[in-house]
Amino acid sequence: MSKSTITYGLIGGGKGAFISGVHRRAAEFDGRARLAAGCFSRDFNNTLATGAELGLARERLYASFDELAAKEAKRPDKIDFVIIVTPNNAHFPAAKVALEHGLHVVCDKPLTLTVEEAEELERLARKQGLLFCVTYLNPGYPIIKHARELVRGGEIGRIRMVMGEYAQGWLADLVEKTGLKVAWRTDPAQSGVSCSVGDVGSHLENLVSYVTGLKIEELCARLDIFGEGRKLDTNASILVRYQDGAAGNYWTSQIAIGHDNDLRIRVFGTKGTIDWRQEEPNHLKLTYLNGPTQYLSKGSGYLSPAGLKYNRTPPGHPDGTYEAFANIYAAFLNALERVKSGERVDPAELEYPDVAEGVAGMRFIHKCVESSRAGRWVKL
Amino acid sequence: MSKSTITYGLIGGGKGAFISGVHRRAAEFDGRARLAAGCFSRDFNNTLATGAELGLARERLYASFDELAAKEAKRPDKIDFVIIVTPNNAHFPAAKVALEHGLHVVCDKPLTLTVEEAEELERLARKQGLLFCVTYLNPGYPIIKHARELVRGGEIGRIRMVMGEYAQGWLADLVEKTGLKVAWRTDPAQSGVSCSVGDVGSHLENLVSYVTGLKIEELCARLDIFGEGRKLDTNASILVRYQDGAAGNYWTSQIAIGHDNDLRIRVFGTKGTIDWRQEEPNHLKLTYLNGPTQYLSKGSGYLSPAGLKYNRTPPGHPDGTYEAFANIYAAFLNALERVKSGERVDPAELEYPDVAEGVAGMRFIHKCVESSRAGRWVKL
Amino acid sequence: MSKSTITYGLIGGGKGAFISGVHRRAAEFDGRARLAAGCFSRDFNNTLATGAELGLARERLYASFDELAAKEAKRPDKIDFVIIVTPNNAHFPAAKVALEHGLHVVCDKPLTLTVEEAEELERLARKQGLLFCVTYLNPGYPIIKHARELVRGGEIGRIRMVMGEYAQGWLADLVEKTGLKVAWRTDPAQSGVSCSVGDVGSHLENLVSYVTGLKIEELCARLDIFGEGRKLDTNASILVRYQDGAAGNYWTSQIAIGHDNDLRIRVFGTKGTIDWRQEEPNHLKLTYLNGPTQYLSKGSGYLSPAGLKYNRTPPGHPDGTYEAFANIYAAFLNALERVKSGERVDPAELEYPDVAEGVAGMRFIHKCVESSRAGRWVKL
Amino acid sequence: MSKSTITYGLIGGGKGAFISGVHRRAAEFDGRARLAAGCFSRDFNNTLATGAELGLARERLYASFDELAAKEAKRPDKIDFVIIVTPNNAHFPAAKVALEHGLHVVCDKPLTLTVEEAEELERLARKQGLLFCVTYLNPGYPIIKHARELVRGGEIGRIRMVMGEYAQGWLADLVEKTGLKVAWRTDPAQSGVSCSVGDVGSHLENLVSYVTGLKIEELCARLDIFGEGRKLDTNASILVRYQDGAAGNYWTSQIAIGHDNDLRIRVFGTKGTIDWRQEEPNHLKLTYLNGPTQYLSKGSGYLSPAGLKYNRTPPGHPDGTYEAFANIYAAFLNALERVKSGERVDPAELEYPDVAEGVAGMRFIHKCVESSRAGRWVKL
Repeated sequence: MSKSTITYGLIGGGKGAFISGVHRRAAEFDGRARLAAGCFSRDFNNTLATGAELGLARERLYASFDELAAKEAKRPDKIDFVIIVTPNNAHFPAAKVALEHGLHVVCDKPLTLTVEEAEELERLARKQGLLFCVTYLNPGYPIIKHARELVRGGEIGRIRMVMGEYAQGWLADLVEKTGLKVAWRTDPAQSGVSCSVGDVGSHLENLVSYVTGLKIEELCARLDIFGEGRKLDTNASILVRYQDGAAGNYWTSQIAIGHDNDLRIRVFGTKGTIDWRQEEPNHLKLTYLNGPTQYLSKGSGYLSPAGLKYNRTPPGHPDGTYEAFANIYAAFLNALERVKSGERVDPAELEYPDVAEGVAGMRFIHKCVESSRAGRWVKL
Repeated sequence: MSKSTITYGLIGGGKGAFISGVHRRAAEFDGRARLAAGCFSRDFNNTLATGAELGLARERLYASFDELAAKEAKRPDKIDFVIIVTPNNAHFPAAKVALEHGLHVVCDKPLTLTVEEAEELERLARKQGLLFCVTYLNPGYPIIKHARELVRGGEIGRIRMVMGEYAQGWLADLVEKTGLKVAWRTDPAQSGVSCSVGDVGSHLENLVSYVTGLKIEELCARLDIFGEGRKLDTNASILVRYQDGAAGNYWTSQIAIGHDNDLRIRVFGTKGTIDWRQEEPNHLKLTYLNGPTQYLSKGSGYLSPAGLKYNRTPPGHPDGTYEAFANIYAAFLNALERVKSGERVDPAELEYPDVAEGVAGMRFIHKCVESSRAGRWVKL
Repeated sequence: MSKSTITYGLIGGGKGAFISGVHRRAAEFDGRARLAAGCFSRDFNNTLATGAELGLARERLYASFDELAAKEAKRPDKIDFVIIVTPNNAHFPAAKVALEHGLHVVCDKPLTLTVEEAEELERLARKQGLLFCVTYLNPGYPIIKHARELVRGGEIGRIRMVMGEYAQGWLADLVEKTGLKVAWRTDPAQSGVSCSVGDVGSHLENLVSYVTGLKIEELCARLDIFGEGRKLDTNASILVRYQDGAAGNYWTSQIAIGHDNDLRIRVFGTKGTIDWRQEEPNHLKLTYLNGPTQYLSKGSGYLSPAGLKYNRTPPGHPDGTYEAFANIYAAFLNALERVKSGERVDPAELEYPDVAEGVAGMRFIHKCVESSRAGRWVKL
Repeated sequence: MSKSTITYGLIGGGKGAFISGVHRRAAEFDGRARLAAGCFSRDFNNTLATGAELGLARERLYASFDELAAKEAKRPDKIDFVIIVTPNNAHFPAAKVALEHGLHVVCDKPLTLTVEEAEELERLARKQGLLFCVTYLNPGYPIIKHARELVRGGEIGRIRMVMGEYAQGWLADLVEKTGLKVAWRTDPAQSGVSCSVGDVGSHLENLVSYVTGLKIEELCARLDIFGEGRKLDTNASILVRYQDGAAGNYWTSQIAIGHDNDLRIRVFGTKGTIDWRQEEPNHLKLTYLNGPTQYLSKGSGYLSPAGLKYNRTPPGHPDGTYEAFANIYAAFLNALERVKSGERVDPAELEYPDVAEGVAGMRFIHKCVESSRAGRWVKL
């Protein structure tokens, strides 16, 4: 697995971080990409130590992402892309400078702090002709690709109702007072206008959109700040109306004791229903009108080619978070290889979440906040 | 089981009806009550046939509920109470005339068509000093009584969030065109202002209230009419704010293919969570902060006395709809026996859903309709 | 529900008993039978008190089952049948005297203490032309009748393997030292040669036989006596070979902490598999070769007529132990009404477990004990 | 992740193989090992093509595993270890020659074709002072390490009963006639004396042993050859008695339609029970005597240090097959790094499955075959 000719730089992910390790392993899962540069922390000593641990050359460890972008861009062996896994507030400046220096970008979600920033990144990526992946994880699950095929192919009829929920319990207590590293999410300066909608709600919006193609026309949200002294929502309920008359109901929570990381979507059509939970990611429930519920298992021969394309192991061999991320990266690297070989890649062909989906996420988050503050339905 | 000295009359439940058979069996489950009179249908021939089948005396089969109430009231062996299991529109007049003639009442939910009717029944019942049970089923499950103890006793802390859903799929298709008897529910004249909120939503409202004691302060509902040509909602989403600041999100549906009769409530507190599904009624999930989810089993020695009081079989022996109804009737008959023996029964002691809960249900239904029409939050 | 003209006497079921209450309610569930006589205990005072509570006439309370049979047989309004719910050791003498006096019999399982006793009851019932139901519960579940149709109709192909398990945990501790009434099961004098195989294993044998029709050719059992000072097995594993070459593996346990009453059977054929658990009795898992697992729900329109015949409520309305028993009694009463009206009932038409199944159960139990003692395979 | 200084050679895993890709990714998951040599197939062209695809130097692609071992051993940059993922019949010669040339070994299970071969490998590894990991996967799941802690620490008391099952359905049909690559498992020449016991049964034996430490004293097996024309078992039932009096019941199957890869173990003690399924690998059910079942979630703070040591993601983020393998490799690489730095590693400290466990597996397989042929219990 050492044949990789594609290299990348990592922004964020110093010691103690969790998600950066997932990104690195996922990017390198199939031996097609190799970490070559890094700016892991605002603390350069942390960057130096992390870089040493990861076996990077000293000269490719940078004190800032600006420096990383500028210096890498001049190297003959420059990195192909950056992965940005910082707190949210650094996404925009880091991505912007990378794009400006001709580097393709993979960035964690939510994409930015404001809608305008997100739109600027989208424009810049298009103008520069660069790839920009926003790492919404769930489209990386093969059975979700099968679900998308079913729904978009009309198998469950016209969609009437979408139930989406993403429930976690890790903020039930004031863990930000315990020094837990990931607790920056409750800080508006780093996290943006929302905690629960921004963090988990954006996954929900993306997944529903990915599977169904529905466009939200209006929504009515109520964001709840649970946890004494907090400034951002840790729970939210959102009523949705889609452009074609379908209805939606989303619930996001980080105070839901008893739920670890419990994303679930159900899509109800006139002819059938699909039901999927991220904590059981290798199965999909499918029920046709007047028929029994079927329990589809990833990797099975009865699935569609789309549902099998990114499958890695036979049915019954659980795949999880790493493999879903690895599939997002595989799709990104597929596109990148084509771009590097001079091909033109049509955005409609992309099999990973594009910057446009990051923009849609920011619009959703901000509309939820607006609706909750106003206490009424708002148009998108 | 033939020692019963308490007798009742049945209003509704002619041939082809389903729920009346459940009521009869539940009322007589413990041999404490006996059917003695009936007006099963507006079609007297149906009443006569049904009565013969049930072994009733010809003289106690009546052409109208007015006649039943009036004539029974004059008999020395008059019935003690009536059970009303007609379509919704007959609940009010039937209950009213029964109360006026001094008969105790058990009535199906939703209680009436309008809030005013419901309030009138409550006043009349109180004035007459008569018992009035509204057959919300779910408080009849023993483990729900345990859940109520836990929640009201503070075991899960202060409540922050309630998720409630009641999903069925039987109206996904236009079954009312097939002659299905229960399809009167989609007819405003018989069903009232709402179908899904009125039918299943009222159960949801009642169960949350029963378990938590929370009072709704305001709500924002969207009722969706799915099914061509229909006039009433078959799907609804309702955002709730309770008086003490807790939040709620209810979803009711009758077009949710893949769900049979899937009522679920989750109550999230500062110290723990409970999670219950009507389709697995003998278990309750309980999670304390930072602890694993526990799966409580009805009848187990570790449950509270309240959770065991109405339990009928050892753990692992499934109880279901009939037993839950039988427990509601058992609680009603307990109270009735006390009343008949001259005791005074404090409403606070009642272990069955009282007329006041029927009134609360009607207020909830009408506020949901009002909110949905106005497209905004409304106060209760 | 008071039109019943069929009456019965109850043998066993004095105060403190559990299963007798289930039998009474089940027998009277549809208002077709009425308790008219009783010998509830060897302690006549208990019988008198229980009889008074149940509203029976004093003259029809008997000090012994011999007296009950003899005296009832002479009454013009004599009972039609007896229900025997005593500890196992009284089944044989009670059933024998009932048959000798011309009373039909419903008897709990396991049928007797010895195979010879069981065979004698079968001969006597046949000779007298009397009905004899052994209350194996599980064939009373409607979805089990559907499973039987599927399997016997060849839907899952030729059967290769049967996995059966019945796990309870209530004897994990020495509860017989706590005065628990049902603890007679660990006493050989009352229970017979086996505890776990006799009590729960016999259900397993019956259910597999009912669903598949397979005949056991040989078996190899190991009975384990767990619990200090006990004399009977509380856990057992049994390898089975059926006459047509299929294989089976049964496990019975009463020391399996974490299992309440967990009966499960899986039948694997060349074309498909069925999987059923008694604790989720309203669903059946069905998987065809190369297809997804389907989750069938009782009462659904896609089920066979046989699977719907005894169904009582719509899908999603849980039925349980009482309803399964009520269905066994309904089938028994169907046959009894035909017999009373002079019809001849072909044993092959019976929809309840017949005395022949009770005999088969006794043979199974005794062969398991024989095999375990010998430490080898034995032929049936 | 490119700092790895440890290198390995891969034996087996040419184009079309599945498990070799899992091994490679798992070995390199944490960037600590790098593939440097290979003999992927008996067909050298396949090896050349696979090697090119994986970016290996041409000179380190070998026509036979003998050549690989001999030539690598002489290189200054020689590989540290080999991974053997061939069909079973090549395990022994490949491992033997690797050990003889001083290479550490990671080998798939079952270890060899005969017990004698396995014992010879164990002796040789000990004599050479080389590490030898047999890739039983399941000890790689963090929550299994927690289960082991619980059980071995006496939390569930003295063990009475173990239920183990490993059910797959992929051999329900004659897939070996379709050219499916993995169908060599039904061929005695490549697979050995057993198919289902050898392949999945060995996992079961290993996992029970790993979690409980129980030693099998005797067993009684019946191996079933289902599938026309087959020579090896595709289904088996095994009664077990352990040295301390506990009982076991194992079932292995590859014809169990409806099961993908369904390994489950339940361990019943005097004070509690654990229950784990490989298809839901991130949770463990734990029930204490007279308490509710608890559902433990990997990564949770309430788990033991042993249960958290190899954990990679927070609760609710599913880990699966790759991560379990990666953890086995991580433990192996931990030991290898210590050995390379001159430390002595005590076999008792090993956190991966050692060659001794491979030997135990071979004894188990052969005793099952012996017992089934003889039709009786056999001692181990």
